Amino acid sequence: MCGIFGIESHSDAANLTYLGLYALQHRGQESAGLASWDGRQMRVERGMGEVREIFPPRVLTALQGERAIGHTRYSTAGRSMIADAQPVVVMTAMGPLAIVHNGNLANAMDLRHRLEQEGSIFQTSSDTEVILHLMAKNPREDVVDSLMLALSQIRGAYSLLLLTRDAVIAARDPWGFRPLIEGELTSEGAGLGQNRSSAACFASETCALDLLGARKVGELQPGEVVVAREGNVERRKLRNVAEAQASRCAFEHVYFARPDSEIFGDPVSEVRTEMGRVLAREQPVEADLVSPVPDSGLFPALGFADQSGIPFEMGLIRNHYVGRTFIQPKQEIRDFGVRVKLNPVRRLIEGQRVVLVDDSIVRGTTSRKIVRMVREAGAREVHLRISSPPTQWPCHYGIDTPRRKELIAAQKDVDEICAYVEADSLGYMTVDGMLSCLSGPPESYCTACWSGGYRVPVSAAGAKQGNLFPILTEAKS
Amino acid sequence: MCGIFGIESHSDAANLTYLGLYALQHRGQESAGLASWDGRQMRVERGMGEVREIFPPRVLTALQGERAIGHTRYSTAGRSMIADAQPVVVMTAMGPLAIVHNGNLANAMDLRHRLEQEGSIFQTSSDTEVILHLMAKNPREDVVDSLMLALSQIRGAYSLLLLTRDAVIAARDPWGFRPLIEGELTSEGAGLGQNRSSAACFASETCALDLLGARKVGELQPGEVVVAREGNVERRKLRNVAEAQASRCAFEHVYFARPDSEIFGDPVSEVRTEMGRVLAREQPVEADLVSPVPDSGLFPALGFADQSGIPFEMGLIRNHYVGRTFIQPKQEIRDFGVRVKLNPVRRLIEGQRVVLVDDSIVRGTTSRKIVRMVREAGAREVHLRISSPPTQWPCHYGIDTPRRKELIAAQKDVDEICAYVEADSLGYMTVDGMLSCLSGPPESYCTACWSGGYRVPVSAAGAKQGNLFPILTEAKS
Amino acid sequence: MCGIFGIESHSDAANLTYLGLYALQHRGQESAGLASWDGRQMRVERGMGEVREIFPPRVLTALQGERAIGHTRYSTAGRSMIADAQPVVVMTAMGPLAIVHNGNLANAMDLRHRLEQEGSIFQTSSDTEVILHLMAKNPREDVVDSLMLALSQIRGAYSLLLLTRDAVIAARDPWGFRPLIEGELTSEGAGLGQNRSSAACFASETCALDLLGARKVGELQPGEVVVAREGNVERRKLRNVAEAQASRCAFEHVYFARPDSEIFGDPVSEVRTEMGRVLAREQPVEADLVSPVPDSGLFPALGFADQSGIPFEMGLIRNHYVGRTFIQPKQEIRDFGVRVKLNPVRRLIEGQRVVLVDDSIVRGTTSRKIVRMVREAGAREVHLRISSPPTQWPCHYGIDTPRRKELIAAQKDVDEICAYVEADSLGYMTVDGMLSCLSGPPESYCTACWSGGYRVPVSAAGAKQGNLFPILTEAKS
Amino acid sequence: MCGIFGIESHSDAANLTYLGLYALQHRGQESAGLASWDGRQMRVERGMGEVREIFPPRVLTALQGERAIGHTRYSTAGRSMIADAQPVVVMTAMGPLAIVHNGNLANAMDLRHRLEQEGSIFQTSSDTEVILHLMAKNPREDVVDSLMLALSQIRGAYSLLLLTRDAVIAARDPWGFRPLIEGELTSEGAGLGQNRSSAACFASETCALDLLGARKVGELQPGEVVVAREGNVERRKLRNVAEAQASRCAFEHVYFARPDSEIFGDPVSEVRTEMGRVLAREQPVEADLVSPVPDSGLFPALGFADQSGIPFEMGLIRNHYVGRTFIQPKQEIRDFGVRVKLNPVRRLIEGQRVVLVDDSIVRGTTSRKIVRMVREAGAREVHLRISSPPTQWPCHYGIDTPRRKELIAAQKDVDEICAYVEADSLGYMTVDGMLSCLSGPPESYCTACWSGGYRVPVSAAGAKQGNLFPILTEAKS
Repeated sequence: MCGIFGIESHSDAANLTYLGLYALQHRGQESAGLASWDGRQMRVERGMGEVREIFPPRVLTALQGERAIGHTRYSTAGRSMIADAQPVVVMTAMGPLAIVHNGNLANAMDLRHRLEQEGSIFQTSSDTEVILHLMAKNPREDVVDSLMLALSQIRGAYSLLLLTRDAVIAARDPWGFRPLIEGELTSEGAGLGQNRSSAACFASETCALDLLGARKVGELQPGEVVVAREGNVERRKLRNVAEAQASRCAFEHVYFARPDSEIFGDPVSEVRTEMGRVLAREQPVEADLVSPVPDSGLFPALGFADQSGIPFEMGLIRNHYVGRTFIQPKQEIRDFGVRVKLNPVRRLIEGQRVVLVDDSIVRGTTSRKIVRMVREAGAREVHLRISSPPTQWPCHYGIDTPRRKELIAAQKDVDEICAYVEADSLGYMTVDGMLSCLSGPPESYCTACWSGGYRVPVSAAGAKQGNLFPILTEAKS
Repeated sequence: MCGIFGIESHSDAANLTYLGLYALQHRGQESAGLASWDGRQMRVERGMGEVREIFPPRVLTALQGERAIGHTRYSTAGRSMIADAQPVVVMTAMGPLAIVHNGNLANAMDLRHRLEQEGSIFQTSSDTEVILHLMAKNPREDVVDSLMLALSQIRGAYSLLLLTRDAVIAARDPWGFRPLIEGELTSEGAGLGQNRSSAACFASETCALDLLGARKVGELQPGEVVVAREGNVERRKLRNVAEAQASRCAFEHVYFARPDSEIFGDPVSEVRTEMGRVLAREQPVEADLVSPVPDSGLFPALGFADQSGIPFEMGLIRNHYVGRTFIQPKQEIRDFGVRVKLNPVRRLIEGQRVVLVDDSIVRGTTSRKIVRMVREAGAREVHLRISSPPTQWPCHYGIDTPRRKELIAAQKDVDEICAYVEADSLGYMTVDGMLSCLSGPPESYCTACWSGGYRVPVSAAGAKQGNLFPILTEAKS
Repeated sequence: MCGIFGIESHSDAANLTYLGLYALQHRGQESAGLASWDGRQMRVERGMGEVREIFPPRVLTALQGERAIGHTRYSTAGRSMIADAQPVVVMTAMGPLAIVHNGNLANAMDLRHRLEQEGSIFQTSSDTEVILHLMAKNPREDVVDSLMLALSQIRGAYSLLLLTRDAVIAARDPWGFRPLIEGELTSEGAGLGQNRSSAACFASETCALDLLGARKVGELQPGEVVVAREGNVERRKLRNVAEAQASRCAFEHVYFARPDSEIFGDPVSEVRTEMGRVLAREQPVEADLVSPVPDSGLFPALGFADQSGIPFEMGLIRNHYVGRTFIQPKQEIRDFGVRVKLNPVRRLIEGQRVVLVDDSIVRGTTSRKIVRMVREAGAREVHLRISSPPTQWPCHYGIDTPRRKELIAAQKDVDEICAYVEADSLGYMTVDGMLSCLSGPPESYCTACWSGGYRVPVSAAGAKQGNLFPILTEAKS
Repeated sequence: MCGIFGIESHSDAANLTYLGLYALQHRGQESAGLASWDGRQMRVERGMGEVREIFPPRVLTALQGERAIGHTRYSTAGRSMIADAQPVVVMTAMGPLAIVHNGNLANAMDLRHRLEQEGSIFQTSSDTEVILHLMAKNPREDVVDSLMLALSQIRGAYSLLLLTRDAVIAARDPWGFRPLIEGELTSEGAGLGQNRSSAACFASETCALDLLGARKVGELQPGEVVVAREGNVERRKLRNVAEAQASRCAFEHVYFARPDSEIFGDPVSEVRTEMGRVLAREQPVEADLVSPVPDSGLFPALGFADQSGIPFEMGLIRNHYVGRTFIQPKQEIRDFGVRVKLNPVRRLIEGQRVVLVDDSIVRGTTSRKIVRMVREAGAREVHLRISSPPTQWPCHYGIDTPRRKELIAAQKDVDEICAYVEADSLGYMTVDGMLSCLSGPPESYCTACWSGGYRVPVSAAGAKQGNLFPILTEAKS
């Protein structure tokens, strides 16, 4: 998963992009990158770590220019991805190009194989480079034409930003898997370049616009391409949009987006609270208190309490000073991995029948530790309620889920999962219940992770790219 | 403010101390340090930054030994404090000593001046070094005797841990300003040294014990000294405890402690929720929703909603990826300083009468930004409720408050403050209401920051130490 | 300028490559990189700084595998070159390839322009990437065939190493501009892989072989390609070798190579000492002592003293703790830039007629400072002798010389230069005298920097690449 | 060993001190520190590594003020000394004090023990802190009086600089073991503070004055104290100077000082060259060439060649890119430890009878590796000549020599050493020959490392401080 941000025709472009990325870190905080066009050269900075560590003031100062794009990303632990860090910046016959990309191209491996056969060389294992090669193979006088030609060959999920010598171009795939918002930053003072009154900006979520005080213009439509060039904005449509069925990722609402964002036309916090209400109706239970598993269970727990009338309490406290690498103490501490993040509040829980509300169950191991921990803190009963349907299928469109055999709901039914996590009862939402909380037509959402209905077929190679293709690894991190 | 942790007779002492500090980071996350006695030498590591950054595995591995103490601290920004970082480690006629300390010695400057006149040299500006000098001036065969002699000369707030060649010694001042908890970690396997079944540990708050799975033995009494020596625990009392009136810091419950901790005999989350209820009774208001200012307003907001019947909502979302240094964008973003931490949820707030619950108001500038931001998000009315009395006096016992002239409640009355923060109404708790939420006798708490009743007089020098005495500064950070 | 090293079929490949680079740092100490093939993946590490800083033990340990190549490079100060750092590693239809390269391709810009028109994308501004693109455009079953096809299109100076999944391939351009040595490391113990008794290795100079205790097999011939594949060595010739005239860089002997190396068949220290003797015959002078400008003037000064009978003395001492960035003191220190490197020994120089022997004069500013400094230290006369002809033309074959208008010898005659540097006399070697010190036929050396006779024409674009083409810059360093 | 530098009443004090340390790095390059008085506070920076790494421009800029002192030091590898790094900065009744110190106090452990008994606490294991405690115990209105009182209690080697609120005070012990030079930096422009025309400075060696263009005023006399206070210079004498016999360290001339310095009244390069001549007379040999073991053998080899008439050649080349930590390759490389520093020039050595001139032999292991390496490079005979007498006794006055049992000359006679190092012949200088090269009376030099005649007795404790006293260790480095 990733977050992207870009801005065009603003004298403070890199600094604002940095702030945009800061607001989008919940979409990936392991690496980040930023490119700006300074009028003569592309300037790039990429690094591992949190946004604030990668871009100290002297680095931001060096990223000069009036247009910039940036990227923040989740990386699988234990594998260095600095070589794959975005933006990818290249030189082509059309000049220098920088690109950032959120999503997953379903036919990336096929395209890559074909390109390599035709003599292309790849420096990363990322999908992103494929797009640039497709463009370079079909240069056009206007880079936008070349980009649209390239995108017409691609199937899958992408929300991307392309930085050229005179423009920031935003594009969203015809299926509309991932969100991409267009905003406008209006000058209130001296900040902007001469003769301009507003700057176009693009972000994965509205919370980035909120931080900058930018106005939301609207969500890019599936298959829409928005070109912000020297202060002007032009809108186009990809040709293959007609064939594509809208497939907005419902899981963004369940877990991924920030609750203060509005995506796919719905405010996330409201959707989540409503999910809690529907869940309480679909999976009622008698209990003394409802507690979220923080942070993502907070809104559904509020909704569950509201619907059920069971009191809401913060029965688990989260430690927000995140430390990724802990030496497991020699003397084993029970449920250590969960305890460094969450601590139960014994006086709230003791002797009570507790409803724990969480957003999803992946492998089941963490849920089991939480249930055990709450029970050890004195809970009389622990009822687990999940504000989404069982996750049975891996995502091929940009969310980092494990393979099917590691998904507990692909291996066990609900009763078996309940036994595994040692809860007194377990209840999931139905897919229909879930979709009833969203304002769009039910068929306009991708629910593949729950139903297995993949609307864009994935090439076989893609599923195993890590094994089939040698991967470049930096030794450093 | 600081958090301290120590453990004795455990083969994994440094790693467990690290985890203890990790759980106490809410008490200060700007610098940390850890000392261990490896049987031959003191080993020390200190640094600026978060606990996880200062102690990577190779550093923890180097901190060998079966006893260790640690410290995590809040430092004023913009001033490097690495020279003052704790533990302070020195060599004396009684052998090497390491000390960590939470609090503020009211007569530190007097003592320091006297010691300097007698030929002592100081390497830091911290109070902590004073204690060690007092000990070195009066060595005793048993280090504990020397420590108790030194402490008998000290007035003020201290919860401290002393590491010697054979012991970890915990001491709490006779007034009991700051919490200090004794715990016991029982072996469930191979982890401990030979012939021992449990290890004594000490922590500022119970949440550190919870993380380790340690049992709480109890809070140190005011004036109590607990000596954990080679697996045995001995308890003593400071002589001057009789003259001292119990003065537990009520502000720990309002703001400082973690909600899942239990301090001064009360669970923090319960106290805070109850404060919200009392606040709702003392300062009722007609409104459509109650929202906390996260994170510290969460529990009082729950209590306020519970008492008043007004629905609870999360109207403000906090960004937990903390970045301390931001370049202010060239084009000023309204309320930027608050926005990087908090974002209002427009759809919850729009058109509503909102009660915002926060723990305290210091200068008033942040509250004003929050009220404005919520109003801009569409709130019809904004009612600010504060779950503590007006903060009118600086703390001389260890909490880092600004000088009196910067405290808005020392300069303005409630109506004036309400006007300043631009709220529709403003309500504080009474001191009596506040104390009614605590289980101890009202006179056993220090309320100096609200009432000005300082129970331990502060020497004039102490109030201005930064100006009177040249201070050693490291250029680096 | 650069140094390269590679080794094949050795279980300690990365560590030995590291040592090889360490020995070659005089050829460039500003950045370095190393790639190894671990049997499944390419592993790469690149960085700015000295070799020892870039490759701490944990990094070397991560660079697993039995074949590795490395690169150390000189970078122009003030411009970050990390994006251009070598090895360049790419994925192609022939599998992953890593390349390191010493030299300068005369037709690189032409080739690059053509490749971009054909749809290639470039991620660096380095020549090296061009070679990989040419290969990818013409894949062959055997990578060696593809490499040889690519090299047949290239004119200019290159000594390169290519790392593939099963081989390390060394190639030297048909003109033989830069040295490239083949060596063999014979097992004396357990170190090697199974069933093998020796490992092929390649280095820019013999001093790298000496450090490893490797036997010199011989210098690669101009146009020779040596393939070390799984323990076997195969030799080939580039087709275009017939048209090329041997053009070994004479400046390698004057300045660049380490004195303990043997290149182009001659021991460098002997060549330099002989140059000093020839210089003494061509440019005699009456004086009291001969002193080198350390370090490169050392051997010619010994030869000059030997031939002339004038006593040799170390009149200038060099500070070897190199610091690149100095804040110029507020009060200007005379000849500060030279003084931080060199200090005259007053008691040797005072009242004496001094011959200073240096290897070359580029802009003349440093020479002037040295002459002044020696005169201030009391020298009665200062006679400057240069162990090479006047440098009048920039090098297009890999040595980093400034543009012609900055070369003092392109702008002034010897008398004018003498006046500029404020010497009592100035004497250069003749080109013939210079060539008489080398064992090869005079016409087999490139003397373009002295004579302007460029044997491989440089495309116009190449001369200005920095201006014509936007360049990717990392903001960091 | 250490180098020290200080300057008073110069507006660029920290930057000039930095440059002074840069010139003195040969006296210790493992750690460095610098303190300045900014008019209100002491500012300090200390670190591990080379001077240029510890003091980037932003750090130097922060070290404001018109007086500064600095220190560069050799540290034993593998033991972190950051806690002991100088300057030591403390607060006393006389105000803040910073001190740097080159030498070794013979009665440090006795004094320290006494001070601890009297209640002093120590934060480092360095001698330096002892001096500050002695001062603090006897404060005087004028800090100089307090310093002189303290120094009157100290026996041993020290050249020190003390920085106070208004002065830089230089002191040299009554025996004059270590050099300490006074200089004067005259303003040529705007650089200095108002109404001043010169700034006093102090350095371990003259080479630091040369770099700054400062005039040498003279060497401090044994027992002299020079007070540079607000632009004025005052000279005093320690009372105990009368009892002390001049004991200038002859080994400074053999090895430690930089050849372009002048210490104890003699130019180092001249002394070393003369040593080579005396050595050639005392230990003649028939041979084909004389080669130094670089760098310290260079001047004696020139003298040896001059006296003997045997040609001088650079038969060994040194790699100046120092890397301290190498992973020993799996396949052992013969004489690896020496080879990474030195490489023999085969064509000079092959078939020849070689005289190798080195400055001293400590354990003999390195000499053996060098002799072997030269023989493997083809030398017919290898004759080792040492430009000092056999090192038989450890230094207690500041040079870091190993214990007596590790000194080969304490265990073996010259024939046995010759056999051990595998040379064809071995010759040392006599003590008388050595002293004949120095201009002072023979009895004015300390020759204890050759003769065992320790003129200042060392307390028993001192010899074993590392064992008797627990030492504070930082875990980090």
